This record gives sequence, C-alpha cells and structure tokens, in this order.
Amino acid sequence: MRYFVTGCAGFIGSTLTERLLADGHVVVGYDNFSTGRESFLRLAGGSARFRLVRGDVLDQAAVSEAMADSDFVFHLAANADVRFGTATPRRDLEQNTIATHNVLEAMRKNSIAKIAFSSSGSVYGEASTFPTPEDAPFPIQTSLYGASKLAGEGLITAYCNGFGFQSYIFRFVSILGERYTHGHIFDFYQQLKADPGILRVLGDGRQRKSYLYVHDCIDAMLLAIQRTDDRVNVLNLGTDGYCAVNDSIDWICEKLGVAPRIEYAGGERGWIGDNPFIFLDTTKIRALGWKPKLTIQQGIIKTVEYLVANPHVLDTRP
Amino acid sequence: MRYFVTGCAGFIGSTLTERLLADGHVVVGYDNFSTGRESFLRLAGGSARFRLVRGDVLDQAAVSEAMADSDFVFHLAANADVRFGTATPRRDLEQNTIATHNVLEAMRKNSIAKIAFSSSGSVYGEASTFPTPEDAPFPIQTSLYGASKLAGEGLITAYCNGFGFQSYIFRFVSILGERYTHGHIFDFYQQLKADPGILRVLGDGRQRKSYLYVHDCIDAMLLAIQRTDDRVNVLNLGTDGYCAVNDSIDWICEKLGVAPRIEYAGGERGWIGDNPFIFLDTTKIRALGWKPKLTIQQGIIKTVEYLVANPHVLDTRP
Repeated sequence: MRYFVTGCAGFIGSTLTERLLADGHVVVGYDNFSTGRESFLRLAGGSARFRLVRGDVLDQAAVSEAMADSDFVFHLAANADVRFGTATPRRDLEQNTIATHNVLEAMRKNSIAKIAFSSSGSVYGEASTFPTPEDAPFPIQTSLYGASKLAGEGLITAYCNGFGFQSYIFRFVSILGERYTHGHIFDFYQQLKADPGILRVLGDGRQRKSYLYVHDCIDAMLLAIQRTDDRVNVLNLGTDGYCAVNDSIDWICEKLGVAPRIEYAGGERGWIGDNPFIFLDTTKIRALGWKPKLTIQQGIIKTVEYLVANPHVLDTRP
Repeated sequence: MRYFVTGCAGFIGSTLTERLLADGHVVVGYDNFSTGRESFLRLAGGSARFRLVRGDVLDQAAVSEAMADSDFVFHLAANADVRFGTATPRRDLEQNTIATHNVLEAMRKNSIAKIAFSSSGSVYGEASTFPTPEDAPFPIQTSLYGASKLAGEGLITAYCNGFGFQSYIFRFVSILGERYTHGHIFDFYQQLKADPGILRVLGDGRQRKSYLYVHDCIDAMLLAIQRTDDRVNVLNLGTDGYCAVNDSIDWICEKLGVAPRIEYAGGERGWIGDNPFIFLDTTKIRALGWKPKLTIQQGIIKTVEYLVANPHVLDTRP
C-alpha cells in the first residue's frame, strides 16, 4: 500500500511512518515542521520507500500535488495543543478544521477514498457517561480544540456520505511514549529538571486522565483499518482505566528520585477547557482483537525514560 | 435591546428584524445580499431604529465594525441550501463554519457575549431515535451542510466555555411561510407554475419531513432567549409531527387546483445527503411555554398563498 501521512514529522506521525515502512509499505510524508522535528525522521529517511514533502496542509495545491498516487491517507497534522485555544482562537480553526477540508479536497482530486483521522476524546466535552462510549449523548464542546476536531470528524463523515469515502476516526486519549513533546508529563519533567525542589501543578491534582502508549495507539489504528470495513468507523482509543494527575506525579518523581514540594494552582480544572475526567469506553476496538500492551503507569515511566535519554527534545522545542 | 442580525435580508432574518423593531428594539442588520433581498427590508427600512450594513460575514473587520454597540447577536447568515453541498464543498465551510468563527471573534472584540444561532436538525445526520431529542446519540454527519452547522455549534459552545459567552442554539426543521424562497415547496410551486400537467419529484415521495411556520419559529426564539438562561441552551424547533412529501404535494395541488402527473426519480433519498425522515422532539421548547400556532398543512398552504401573491420572488431569484 502507498500511504500518505500528514504530520509525518510529529510524535505520532513519525512513529506511524516508521511502522508503515517496517511493514513494507510506501510512505509519502507531509509536514511543515511547525512542531514536527527533522530528527524524528532520521530512521524513515533511510528508507527508499519513504519520500518527504515539506509543505503546509493549508496550501491546498501543494497537499494535493504531494498526495498523487497514494492509496490511503493518515491525516495526523494538527494543532495538538488543547490548552492555548483561547489565546489563539483562529489556530484550531485553520490547522484542524480548514486543514481537514483541504486534505479531503486533495483526496477527491486524486481519487483517494480512504482516510484515517486522529480525532480526540475531547470531542465529548465534559461527558456525563463513564467510560464514555462512541455513541455518547450529543456533546457540548468545551474547548476550541475539541470543537475543531468535531468539525473535522463532521467533514470527513459528510465526505463519506457525499463522495463514497471510507473513514477511520480515532478518538484518542492523551498519547505518550517516545518522542512525546507536549502535555502534562512533558511539563512536569521540564519543571523538575529545572528545579527538583518544586512542582507547580495546574488545578488541584485530582483531575482524572487517561493515557495510551504510542505504539499501542499505532497497533490499534493499523489493526482497525484491517479488521473493520464500515463506511464510517469511529473508534475510541485508550487504556481501560485512568489515573489522577497526582498519581502520575508520584510515578514521575519516584522514577526521577526527586521529592519536590507541590504547589497546586487549585480548582477542578487545570485551564479553561481542561476536562476534569477523561475515561473512554474501548469496548469497540477491543472487540476487534486489540488490547494495549502497556498500562498507564508503564507508559508514563517509558515517557520519562525517553525524556531523560533525549534532552535535545527539551532544548529544541519550537 | 440593541440586536445585531446577520442575514437580515433573508427569509428568516428579515422576518425577525421586523419583529424586533415592532417590539421596540434597535436593530443593526448585516447582509451581503447574496441570497437576501432588498424587498424583504422595505418595512424595516422605514424604521428609525433600523440600520442596514452591507457586508460579508467573511470580512471579519467589517462585521466587527458593524457590530459595535450591539448587545445581542442573532447569527442567521448562512448557506441555507442543504442540497448542493457536494457540488461546492467549500461553500458550507466558508459561509457557515468560518463565518461563524468571524462572528464570534467580532463579538469578542466588541465585548458582546450573547448569541442566538440558526442551527439545523440536519446535525443529527440520519437519526436513530424519533422524535429526535437534543441529547440524541453522538451523530454521524451525512451532509456538508449538517457538518458545517455542527462545526458552528461547536465553535459557539467552545466560546461559551472559553470566553463566558451565552448561547441559544436553535436546531430548526425546514422553515416555511412568507418570504420562503428555496426548498421543496418552492421547487414544486415553480414547476407547477411552468407546467401544471407534470410534477417531477426527487426520491420516492415517501420521505417524511417536518416543517415549521416562520412566525412560529420566531416566537420560539424570542421566547427562549427570555425564559431560559443556561450558559448553553440547545433547543429543537419544529412542529409536533411530520408529513410525507406526497402529502405536501396533495395539499399544494389542491390549493392550486391542479392535478399533475407525478414522476418520481425514485429512491429513498431525494439527493445525496437527503434525510428520509426528520422529526424532532420539541419537548424542551414546549416546556418553556411555546407551541406552534400553525400545523404543517396550514404552513404549507400559507407558503403557497404567498408564492401565488408574490411572483417577483420567483423571477428575481439569485
């Protein structure tokens, strides 16, 4: 198969790209390196079956040209930062919603009909059902990020109905592991590296979050596109549980051998749009034969080990 | 109150504008006259409390400037045509999703925090529950129009959470009545006027549709913004029933005194993205004390009477 991967130099995109190449596929990767990193593509770059195209998904002509001759699109390019939506409201609209429209139009022009999309559990807003299933009650959006991912899902499914596309929409919990470069664990690690004596925590530390290890996430996506074949396939991806922010702090501190004083900013939510409880129902993806290999705790420890061993990801952060 | 009405020269927008003026309010109307009509603003134009600004909601600076000093925004400007989404996929994105982003940003710049939005029952896709309640299971979009309205809802509710806005999101069935200038009834009337001997019907005529009379719709919106005060208020607006396309054909033909031969294109759906059954649960808006004054049949007859008496709306259609 010839895969087109947007966001190929990102955390998940680069890991997926390596995996597709290892499985014998051809990959055209597309990235504007706004948050992607050259170093993440070092291994992929050594493959004759990999071609990198530098470009922006907001440039419709460029993405369309790069996509020619591909069979299947993994659309992972996105603004992946939930937290700063209110500071830059147009960013989520452009990088997530309009970008997804451009990718779909490029597919249409190139007669490519299969797409996998990295959506997010944040489309459920503050859910009322836990674990939250894919057919949870009609959600109310609480973040611009969630709203933009929901808009992307809507566009994709409308293209499925209108143009005969087939889609795999994956609603992720937070993904972590090697090449993880933003979010809670990253922030905590950066703080503790700068000063192991103090850790400042947004919220009250009791927010309950779900995490999934990046290789488990990629296993799930690749298995789903093999084993399910509906017009529209919507699948939650997560571990069968959650942890409190305070649990992850304990694991990180133990791993690093530090015992900081912890200062809580207070409040149930860490920031505007933060969701105090995320726990997705993964019955659907498990019924296809997948289960995660790593627990949340193991994933967090792997992530800390990666950050310790790769100080460059801290220093060269865009 | 000082209301800002986008799409003020449209079918619903002009009717709302007249009503707000009649109720003693100040109205700034905003329209680019792409589908709005000068003639619909003749009455409003006679009021000293009305000011018209010609502009496009895609021009963010212009909409922001026009909105200054308003208290409350009715965002009705939209591409309202569900049917041609696949012919012009960017239109729904621009005129509905990006336009809504621009209106929200203009509100933020002008410190206006209250918005009412004309959403649509099409956000439910092909619902599985009838009548369909506001908290129906997480929908799968089946039209670019529905996807763009869902994206608009998502943006608005994210602004409510992120910036303390308050919103009234109205999910309409098809609205009809005076100034109705697109959709089933309009198409049927145009055909029968050209040739009373034949009526070509998309689909099999058994699609079940809901309609609401425009003045009932406006009563509902104005009552809701008075009587409910949550941060996010999502309300279905419709009559307590539905009719088959064939029923509406019978009523129209009887009213016009014609007996055409009817040719069905066939199929359960009239076009790609057509929904064979729309019937919304209106328990929530009824619980606020509203009920429609006209039945679907009465609304259809009023509409035909209007079209008969106003041939200019056929001739000058953009």
